[in-house]
Amino acid sequence: MLGYAFMGKAHSNAFRKLAYMTWPPPLVPKLELIAGRNEDAVREAAERYGYERWTTDWHDIVGDPAIGLFDNGGPNIVHAEPTILAAQAGKHVVCEKPLGRDAEESHRIWQEVAATGVKHLCAFNYRFVPAVRLARELIEAGELGEIRHFRGRYLQDWGDDPSLDTWRFHADEAGSGALGDLGAHVVDLSRYLVGEIASVSALVKTFLPGRAVDDAIEAAVEFENGAIGTLESTRLALGRRNAFQWEINGSTGSLAFDMERLNELQVFKADGDRARGFKTVLVSEANHPFWEFWWPPGHIIGWGDTFVNELHHLLAAIVGEHDVGPHGATFEDGYRAAEVCDAIVRSAQSGRREQISYR
Amino acid sequence: MLGYAFMGKAHSNAFRKLAYMTWPPPLVPKLELIAGRNEDAVREAAERYGYERWTTDWHDIVGDPAIGLFDNGGPNIVHAEPTILAAQAGKHVVCEKPLGRDAEESHRIWQEVAATGVKHLCAFNYRFVPAVRLARELIEAGELGEIRHFRGRYLQDWGDDPSLDTWRFHADEAGSGALGDLGAHVVDLSRYLVGEIASVSALVKTFLPGRAVDDAIEAAVEFENGAIGTLESTRLALGRRNAFQWEINGSTGSLAFDMERLNELQVFKADGDRARGFKTVLVSEANHPFWEFWWPPGHIIGWGDTFVNELHHLLAAIVGEHDVGPHGATFEDGYRAAEVCDAIVRSAQSGRREQISYR
Amino acid sequence: MLGYAFMGKAHSNAFRKLAYMTWPPPLVPKLELIAGRNEDAVREAAERYGYERWTTDWHDIVGDPAIGLFDNGGPNIVHAEPTILAAQAGKHVVCEKPLGRDAEESHRIWQEVAATGVKHLCAFNYRFVPAVRLARELIEAGELGEIRHFRGRYLQDWGDDPSLDTWRFHADEAGSGALGDLGAHVVDLSRYLVGEIASVSALVKTFLPGRAVDDAIEAAVEFENGAIGTLESTRLALGRRNAFQWEINGSTGSLAFDMERLNELQVFKADGDRARGFKTVLVSEANHPFWEFWWPPGHIIGWGDTFVNELHHLLAAIVGEHDVGPHGATFEDGYRAAEVCDAIVRSAQSGRREQISYR
Amino acid sequence: MLGYAFMGKAHSNAFRKLAYMTWPPPLVPKLELIAGRNEDAVREAAERYGYERWTTDWHDIVGDPAIGLFDNGGPNIVHAEPTILAAQAGKHVVCEKPLGRDAEESHRIWQEVAATGVKHLCAFNYRFVPAVRLARELIEAGELGEIRHFRGRYLQDWGDDPSLDTWRFHADEAGSGALGDLGAHVVDLSRYLVGEIASVSALVKTFLPGRAVDDAIEAAVEFENGAIGTLESTRLALGRRNAFQWEINGSTGSLAFDMERLNELQVFKADGDRARGFKTVLVSEANHPFWEFWWPPGHIIGWGDTFVNELHHLLAAIVGEHDVGPHGATFEDGYRAAEVCDAIVRSAQSGRREQISYR
Repeated sequence: MLGYAFMGKAHSNAFRKLAYMTWPPPLVPKLELIAGRNEDAVREAAERYGYERWTTDWHDIVGDPAIGLFDNGGPNIVHAEPTILAAQAGKHVVCEKPLGRDAEESHRIWQEVAATGVKHLCAFNYRFVPAVRLARELIEAGELGEIRHFRGRYLQDWGDDPSLDTWRFHADEAGSGALGDLGAHVVDLSRYLVGEIASVSALVKTFLPGRAVDDAIEAAVEFENGAIGTLESTRLALGRRNAFQWEINGSTGSLAFDMERLNELQVFKADGDRARGFKTVLVSEANHPFWEFWWPPGHIIGWGDTFVNELHHLLAAIVGEHDVGPHGATFEDGYRAAEVCDAIVRSAQSGRREQISYR
Repeated sequence: MLGYAFMGKAHSNAFRKLAYMTWPPPLVPKLELIAGRNEDAVREAAERYGYERWTTDWHDIVGDPAIGLFDNGGPNIVHAEPTILAAQAGKHVVCEKPLGRDAEESHRIWQEVAATGVKHLCAFNYRFVPAVRLARELIEAGELGEIRHFRGRYLQDWGDDPSLDTWRFHADEAGSGALGDLGAHVVDLSRYLVGEIASVSALVKTFLPGRAVDDAIEAAVEFENGAIGTLESTRLALGRRNAFQWEINGSTGSLAFDMERLNELQVFKADGDRARGFKTVLVSEANHPFWEFWWPPGHIIGWGDTFVNELHHLLAAIVGEHDVGPHGATFEDGYRAAEVCDAIVRSAQSGRREQISYR
Repeated sequence: MLGYAFMGKAHSNAFRKLAYMTWPPPLVPKLELIAGRNEDAVREAAERYGYERWTTDWHDIVGDPAIGLFDNGGPNIVHAEPTILAAQAGKHVVCEKPLGRDAEESHRIWQEVAATGVKHLCAFNYRFVPAVRLARELIEAGELGEIRHFRGRYLQDWGDDPSLDTWRFHADEAGSGALGDLGAHVVDLSRYLVGEIASVSALVKTFLPGRAVDDAIEAAVEFENGAIGTLESTRLALGRRNAFQWEINGSTGSLAFDMERLNELQVFKADGDRARGFKTVLVSEANHPFWEFWWPPGHIIGWGDTFVNELHHLLAAIVGEHDVGPHGATFEDGYRAAEVCDAIVRSAQSGRREQISYR
Repeated sequence: MLGYAFMGKAHSNAFRKLAYMTWPPPLVPKLELIAGRNEDAVREAAERYGYERWTTDWHDIVGDPAIGLFDNGGPNIVHAEPTILAAQAGKHVVCEKPLGRDAEESHRIWQEVAATGVKHLCAFNYRFVPAVRLARELIEAGELGEIRHFRGRYLQDWGDDPSLDTWRFHADEAGSGALGDLGAHVVDLSRYLVGEIASVSALVKTFLPGRAVDDAIEAAVEFENGAIGTLESTRLALGRRNAFQWEINGSTGSLAFDMERLNELQVFKADGDRARGFKTVLVSEANHPFWEFWWPPGHIIGWGDTFVNELHHLLAAIVGEHDVGPHGATFEDGYRAAEVCDAIVRSAQSGRREQISYR
């Protein structure tokens, strides 16, 4: 594990928890080594999460033959090199999103890692929200018909503080602001649920004086299958704490979702029923995705539990039960999301609709 | 009154109802004459709504000295000529939205009518939803601080029927589809609540084969005051019947609204309260806008009642209590909305961000 | 019309509005005469609502041969005598709820009026909310199976003001407080939707010092068909303005409702669908109850419009299209609700479960 | 640990998870020994959750000097003896709710355990939902003023299956049905949030033929402080999966809650603000209860996480940071809830309002 802060906590918890919640687990994770810059902090993290050892030099992970899986939960600036070297050392790799700080770097990570043959997962964990997977299954089963609209927005408000000064506000370390942090999630789920994006017509904006990265992006988007919609992300939507909201309209039904109520999916079917309306589905039934791991119906799971679903999926891929994709985001998915994010920046600068193309 | 169908019913009801609900009314409307193409239908409408007389030739209204106010609730194609002639005959005029079928026609209507000196109202009735007026008052009072985001979408689904063949689907009669019908409302409220739009980056789409007008539009927008957001309208969002939803985020608060629950306003204030969240305000208090006309708190009003508020406002303007604007939409507002709508079409065609400019 | 305040306004509006909203109306109401105690107020009400004449002596209505329908919207203390005399003079009668101030008086009103053969409607207007009628139709069609639970509560908060001193707080004029004002509505809808109540185990409470009537009631109830549940009303539920909420659970489905969102019905069906949940039905479709009078789908109606539906129903009954019951509440229904209310008081006093029996 | 099924999973997860989520933990739990009737199942549970050893005879736990804390997650019939013996052997004890199968047994457990001086917690885990604790804090701070109403209902629907035959449907093993399983939770939170219950007027009902325990209970309740309300539980409310809903109205504010959205608290304050309404508080702020253990704001927790909060509380009590009560439910609380449950049964049988008294 690289990183011991927000994502380090989320991933470490997931590794420990999946060992008994997903029973029997595909593999039982052993937490070998955790790396981080601050010695006191990484030592404490090792003790806290139960890692055997700790280091302040991530190269130790790369060179350690006891390690089979490298999980990169560090800042964006340390996504590329450690991940590539770990893969080249034969370790399977997980990397937090965004994969790289731009499409160029993301492409390089993907290419170099893919060449090694290891399993790779870009940690777009929201694919592993049960309601999101159910949405995907309903769409694949044709219950929405032809998709016409996707409108996705990821709204947070913690960015409204001029004194904030973490790596997330440094352009070189983060690559971008709300775009890569939140917008990449919207791009990824739109691709997962609707399909490839064909073009974007976008705006990128920094509201707070002196801030080096974007606070918000807005885009009108076209999909390759003809659907159209919007894609937004902002860290300045006061009152919205983690509101990743999306709605999909098809020719025979619609779906809507809000991450602040991540256990619920709104489902509309044009089935001619006189009692017509969106159904609030509490996604917690025995026959709902991932729910064999959890609790009786109605006993909801939390945000942290999506990582349990995700890393279980990866372990199952490692032992050959399935591929990482299409349900997990591979590094190719990480790269593709980055191309869309770059196109959003280009469109904002050029004032033109930008087509998405891939290297 | 010109027109006896949907808008004819809505406006006639409002004229009759305001006479006793808004007490004392600024003027007591007398329903003199109603015009429409179909003789049987217009005769029945006259009887139904209590018009003194009826005609199949709208010129009769123009030439009638007994008429002081002309209300044009007809199809878009008959907005221009009757409205202009009525104004030139000295009658105050109400015209349904969109004012004209494009900016050019809208500009002409505005200019010609303004030159006569009569009062003119473009019937963007949603300005007269109490929750919308309350939103405006909160914004004017500075409770949201600097506005950063507006995201507005008007979602309906009745357009999902290939057999539909009213004037609303004929390009010459309607001008446009979801754009002028629904998008114009979004443009108008965004202008009313946030301010003038500076640019649009847009898509316009027709999904149903053979349909002559657009089914949906999507746009990323910038406002002159620096706010950014999205603007959408569609008649193909299955399950959404009249979902004109918008959200506004400012530097000290946020507001959200859905026309399907038009009596409610969601209000967030960044006031440091530990119990932090959006408040669901049932806009029905004695100290809420328009509520002196209605019922005790919590006894909600309906969609049709917004026209009562609107036409009361116009009558009060006619007797000099206030101007039509800024709370009512004047024909200038109707024209300005049309410029934005035209820019959306241009942007969709050019693939470029289009700046809004006015003639 | 007797009464020109809250209910006078609601009923007068309905009579005027139904003449053109329900087209063609069964009868075209002519507003002949309005009575009230305060001469200035009743004169103004006559002018406002368009009554031909006014009087300060309600006996004038009884004796007036031009009047075919007497609508009693006065305080509870004047429900009995004017209504009975009007019926005995051959006029059809509407009387606001509660019918009398207790079961004894209600029974007398019913018996005396029924003996005359005129049509009688006790104005439990919430039966005429489209969502409530739809609920009844779904239950009658067997979609909920056997009913097991009803939990109904009518919550308001305007009573939380010690300075209030209208007739509603005088025991002799009102009969009771939240019980007859709000609780009677809960009783009536429970009877309309579930069936006759067999017993109540209840509490009655006055919170504000010096108040002469109850502020709140609570009851556990059994229905004759075996369903059980609760029945509550209070004027002291801060934040609830007009929250008449109920939920019904049956062996194959459930329904839920809140008057503050009176256009919506929550519908659950145990149909084995994997997407399982309550559907939010916006009751505004062409095939929904009463909706032929109103607007396109999603264009909601208001609280005042329920009276249009109600009085249209009565006029249709007068011309013989149907009986007042079972969809309208007759005076027998008014009386039966009063028996349940009286049993609630008895149970609160006796500390015993009280069986409901009828005279 | 006694029990490896539903509660065994919930508690074992909590012990493992609190070791790193609540950092530093008061004590680091070591999972020594798990007991259960089925040898294969208990062996697998030991392996799954990481217990050092397993046994099919719970007496082994009692006699094991390595064990400092005994957690009884078994069926109600094995609550008394093992818990008492463990306490008498000097082990701290946790026991699932209901404490005993009736007040008599609950009282005995409490008395015998209290006599030993060990710490005892009755696992009413819903006290450890952050929104519930926040509610308690708001009430204690006087933000609701004098409490007037509590209406609580715990609605599930899994009981609607005649073929179910677990210990939960055997009267001797469970004691009661929806009453002890769900109703006890309602009683406990009502006591925690409002205060002691003075009397109940109740109904108890079994709907399914042949079922040996109750399916539902309904009660009108009085509190010692003068508040009144209702208390309900049922396993037959179709569509409600885990809907433990309650609302509290005070003289200056109100609160409302639904366990299916356990991260949210509805808060109303009568503060004279023109924007008046219930606030939807997403209870996930740094200054909200328990939130120092979890994630950034808006990243919600799940039902299982409430046990982490609960068992952390117990460990902190064991090391002397605070007492188990008043925030944790002691065995005295478990007993008191049982007295109320017994009174509900008595009232249902006697048809009388039953006063609550304690042994």
